Amino acid sequence: MTTTTNHTDEATIEADETLPIIRTTRDFAATPAQLLRAHTDPDLFARWVGPNGMETRIVEWDARDGGSWRFTSGRDGDEYAFRGCFHRVGDDVIVQTFTYEGEPDGVALETLRFEDLGDGRTRLHAQSLVDSFEGRDAWLRSGMEVGVNEGYAKLDAMLASGDV
Amino acid sequence: MTTTTNHTDEATIEADETLPIIRTTRDFAATPAQLLRAHTDPDLFARWVGPNGMETRIVEWDARDGGSWRFTSGRDGDEYAFRGCFHRVGDDVIVQTFTYEGEPDGVALETLRFEDLGDGRTRLHAQSLVDSFEGRDAWLRSGMEVGVNEGYAKLDAMLASGDV
Repeated sequence: MTTTTNHTDEATIEADETLPIIRTTRDFAATPAQLLRAHTDPDLFARWVGPNGMETRIVEWDARDGGSWRFTSGRDGDEYAFRGCFHRVGDDVIVQTFTYEGEPDGVALETLRFEDLGDGRTRLHAQSLVDSFEGRDAWLRSGMEVGVNEGYAKLDAMLASGDV
Repeated sequence: MTTTTNHTDEATIEADETLPIIRTTRDFAATPAQLLRAHTDPDLFARWVGPNGMETRIVEWDARDGGSWRFTSGRDGDEYAFRGCFHRVGDDVIVQTFTYEGEPDGVALETLRFEDLGDGRTRLHAQSLVDSFEGRDAWLRSGMEVGVNEGYAKLDAMLASGDV
């Protein structure tokens, strides 16, 4: 495992050694039900996902088994679009596909699990599976950790202010 | 690559050496448009998919980007159910998730590509990606090639009789 960050408030982002998977782990002062809501309510999700300064617009959102989703993220006239389908939405798990429309042939299968740590804390285990190590490593080199960490910091603030 | 079959009329089913992927290749006397129809029209799909003697019942079917699907397959009172979502449905490609409901935590990301060989022939390239080598190898040991080959033989017959 290659640990790129392990600061307390930052996500741990790891590349699996034998599988084309990125694993991200992050603790939150939240219950599993709150984390599920933050990932499935489109208005809440749009407020925290992605790096600071990007505005997220939900285009399509049907967070149930077999539903689909699409959102755009923009800043200064640049706009990026992402889409996929929800394979499974359970109390403590979400399985979904993920494509950045700028690279339509790239598809990740993402699994999010919410592990109840007790005392109002929950550990998010996110796994992103793709079909090549080259694609996985390019994604790791893209600076993705900035958006991940800035997004989760926004979610922390929403949880602290009782908005979730 | 481990080639389990390479008889002319049988599919080539290969385990990738470095990725948790099964790759299946099979030629058909069909155009890409016919193969797309055979995989996206629910009435046609139900007639050929799976091993001989199993009756397929389509429960849910929405073959478009972000749609979902579910079918059951039964014989002698035993019934198996499968479900997933269509991530992408294009002229020569289908990307979808796949779960056997008896093992709900197992999710495969499947990609089907239809390569036009000319002269009314098309090569199907199917890729099934999962998140562990153990899961992939268990699937290979399950006898899956029987259902794959019997299903494609039924599709051959439907193509020959002009039903697709």
